[in-house]
Amino acid sequence: MDRIIDITELALRDAHQSLIATRLGIDDMVPVCEDLDQAGYWSIECWGGATYDACIRFLNEDPWVRLRTFKELMPKTPLQMLLRGQNLLGYRHYQDEVVDRFVQKSAENGIDVFRIFDALNDLRNLERSVQAVKQCGKHAQVAISYTISPIHTTAKFVEQAKRLVDMGCDSICIKDMAALIKPHATYDLVRGIKEACGDRIRIQLHAHATSGVTMVSYMKAVEAGVDGVDTAVSSMSLGPGHNPTESFAEMLENTGYTTRIDLGRVNKVKEHFAKVLPRYSEFLSTITGAETEIFRSQIPGGMLSNMESQLKQQGAGDRMRDVLEEIPLVRKDTGYVPLVTPTSQIVGTQAVLNVLMGRYKVLTGEFADLMLGYYGLTPGERNPEVVEQARRHANKEPIECRPADLLEPEWGKLRAAALPLEGCDGSDEDVLTYALFPQVAPKFFATRSEGPRNLGRDPVTGASETSIPEGHPGKITGPVTYTVTLSGQPHKVTVAPYGQE
Amino acid sequence: MDRIIDITELALRDAHQSLIATRLGIDDMVPVCEDLDQAGYWSIECWGGATYDACIRFLNEDPWVRLRTFKELMPKTPLQMLLRGQNLLGYRHYQDEVVDRFVQKSAENGIDVFRIFDALNDLRNLERSVQAVKQCGKHAQVAISYTISPIHTTAKFVEQAKRLVDMGCDSICIKDMAALIKPHATYDLVRGIKEACGDRIRIQLHAHATSGVTMVSYMKAVEAGVDGVDTAVSSMSLGPGHNPTESFAEMLENTGYTTRIDLGRVNKVKEHFAKVLPRYSEFLSTITGAETEIFRSQIPGGMLSNMESQLKQQGAGDRMRDVLEEIPLVRKDTGYVPLVTPTSQIVGTQAVLNVLMGRYKVLTGEFADLMLGYYGLTPGERNPEVVEQARRHANKEPIECRPADLLEPEWGKLRAAALPLEGCDGSDEDVLTYALFPQVAPKFFATRSEGPRNLGRDPVTGASETSIPEGHPGKITGPVTYTVTLSGQPHKVTVAPYGQE
Repeated sequence: MDRIIDITELALRDAHQSLIATRLGIDDMVPVCEDLDQAGYWSIECWGGATYDACIRFLNEDPWVRLRTFKELMPKTPLQMLLRGQNLLGYRHYQDEVVDRFVQKSAENGIDVFRIFDALNDLRNLERSVQAVKQCGKHAQVAISYTISPIHTTAKFVEQAKRLVDMGCDSICIKDMAALIKPHATYDLVRGIKEACGDRIRIQLHAHATSGVTMVSYMKAVEAGVDGVDTAVSSMSLGPGHNPTESFAEMLENTGYTTRIDLGRVNKVKEHFAKVLPRYSEFLSTITGAETEIFRSQIPGGMLSNMESQLKQQGAGDRMRDVLEEIPLVRKDTGYVPLVTPTSQIVGTQAVLNVLMGRYKVLTGEFADLMLGYYGLTPGERNPEVVEQARRHANKEPIECRPADLLEPEWGKLRAAALPLEGCDGSDEDVLTYALFPQVAPKFFATRSEGPRNLGRDPVTGASETSIPEGHPGKITGPVTYTVTLSGQPHKVTVAPYGQE
Repeated sequence: MDRIIDITELALRDAHQSLIATRLGIDDMVPVCEDLDQAGYWSIECWGGATYDACIRFLNEDPWVRLRTFKELMPKTPLQMLLRGQNLLGYRHYQDEVVDRFVQKSAENGIDVFRIFDALNDLRNLERSVQAVKQCGKHAQVAISYTISPIHTTAKFVEQAKRLVDMGCDSICIKDMAALIKPHATYDLVRGIKEACGDRIRIQLHAHATSGVTMVSYMKAVEAGVDGVDTAVSSMSLGPGHNPTESFAEMLENTGYTTRIDLGRVNKVKEHFAKVLPRYSEFLSTITGAETEIFRSQIPGGMLSNMESQLKQQGAGDRMRDVLEEIPLVRKDTGYVPLVTPTSQIVGTQAVLNVLMGRYKVLTGEFADLMLGYYGLTPGERNPEVVEQARRHANKEPIECRPADLLEPEWGKLRAAALPLEGCDGSDEDVLTYALFPQVAPKFFATRSEGPRNLGRDPVTGASETSIPEGHPGKITGPVTYTVTLSGQPHKVTVAPYGQE
């Protein structure tokens, strides 16, 4: 009897977050929901991460409606979300009542499996949301943010796993968001956790494909006893995304392992997204193929392109090399934090500032907070000199306690601020939208009734499927001049909308 | 002590053949030759396959000059070519003297390692070229064309390997041109050959990356005792191409295996091709990501796009699905030939004809020859009814002998036909160019003095770097009309060369 390896499908969340900047609209997902639901996945990741933000910021789409749509169309397979522990889906710590309410509403609206992580692997940032999930009777999967550094060892990650089991998590996820986990390390870590925590503890491996080695790590994880892996349907895979679902299933042939996946169903999903993806080409990641520089720079792909655009905005596009060398130093000063939201942005931005203005001459507020403990305990010791600079810069003292313990109850205040907003429907869901994204929520509430905006465009004509609403500024408002080269001769061609010609 | 796994770098031959239709020009290769030569590769594949054809057909480049350039710039690392046995680099069988001369000239001009394969795995098509290579004192690596079918088993491939060793080959290559070889099968095959032929027989694994599983197969090959693998620098890898060199080297960390590769050197090569590749975007394969349908259809990626364009030319683009179902049937009738040049084209074209005209109503001459034994012995029994149809169609009898035994000495005739051609310099190399491509060679000889034509274009302006020679028809000769869509309104824009406006 072959041992079954479970699969979590990422197409509806992390795959499009990684490949097309989280821009996939609900109407491009609905057509595949039935096939996904019937394909035999252990779970379907479809919510959380950056999708909530992208829904209200770019797509004029209510994330809660999206979730309920998924639940209706995929009643069979557990739906999964990614939750940033005490940060929920926002970028700060929330007071415990907000955490409880967010988890409860997510469960009510359809989430079955909560994958919870903290960028610093600080357990105190995970505990409350794990408790909240368990109180809802749902599956609490806690993730270890995987990284490599002089202080990160297999033994330390195994210790962390033991603490997560003690905390009461239902399963453990090894979360390798930067495609850093190599085959040998994977085997040792999975085996180590199984040996330390007992064979019955469920382990899931999540890795990106960027470095080109993690499919091999998946095989090693299987050999070491992993229970499930995350993959994405092939037409939404690879590059900065994930290993392909079909390839994973195929590679297990005759190995003594198998999956429950119905490849006929998956093939339909593949064909759908193969047609859909070119419509989002303007958002398509420039990372294709494999990128192994990350083993030295430790910088995830998404972070790289962010920093490049930051540098270009400052007219310093030529300083990229310096920034790449600065990041490991800044990371060392923080006590080797794993680089994942929000630490990747915090470390990356500080490295850019260090290069442009001089090392730690200017500190961002977030970097100071990180150095002072306001994001939690960092994995290693922070550089005391930089902590001192942060103290002076931010004019506050370092803390040792759980950051959320410093927060006053805030649900009432958030509710009072949200309810008067134009278009707010008074639901807890709307209050949570405001709580998570106070800058974006007011505009979203006001335009929500116009319905979701699909950002896909015909790859040939560039036409969008959704007509641009009256009064909304189209992307091109004046004449555009192209240079067309024929037989080596450049020609200037100017095209204007009707009436401007 | 870690065991060393040798690497053959494919960037200069199979990588660009797979990714950009063999269009890479010599001036885009020269800048990386020193880094490649110093990077620690076992060999650098840089010649043969389709490069000879592409050089004279598209690039106005003398393939022999290209080879000598490589030898001059890469004196340290063995240079490798792919040779189609008795077919050499052409599409028919050549008489033995032509084979001898071709191999001798290739060795003289710089080839150290000859990888020799036959699409049918018919040893009689390999023997003469292996002998010729050994007479030159060079390395004869013989490839087993890997495929999957009801009659292809590990045991049969191991048998084949034993016969290759008996033939006197210096090493064996498992050639998986369609990315079909799965991890478990790889382990068994490598182990099987080592056990049958002795641990000292050198085994190299060549696989494409298309199906997304072969990097894992590489790991299994290493565990089974493989001596070397083929990879391509990351910026010229994946899709229809190969597994990335850097990823392979990185994944071996702490596994007890290692490579001799200098990743600093490889990184320079990577950065070069990352800049160069976008200049060839018009030739870029549309296959990206992973494609696992091949495990069912058995059709390599390159073949798929060929057939699609054949069907479209016949106005039958909607029959693709039927052709995909026809191919396995046609392949079965041939005795399950591996699908690789030239059998992939022969089987594919016949399948298209079967769908459009009725099954075997019309036979191509090549298909009839394949059925009648004129390409050699097929792996399994051919369908006797189709053999009979081929006999009637071609009006010739099936043969059992080595096809090349039927050929009269032809070197003298080829030389007599080549020498009078305008621009032919009378060298054996030129006679060989004529022998391989009698239709293309005359035009190439006539224009050779104009020098190589680089087909790369600026990805933004579309301008080519090489100016188009006087009197040479540019790609665009008349006015061109574009449809440009602005704010949902299509505009027709016509652009003409100066003087036609």
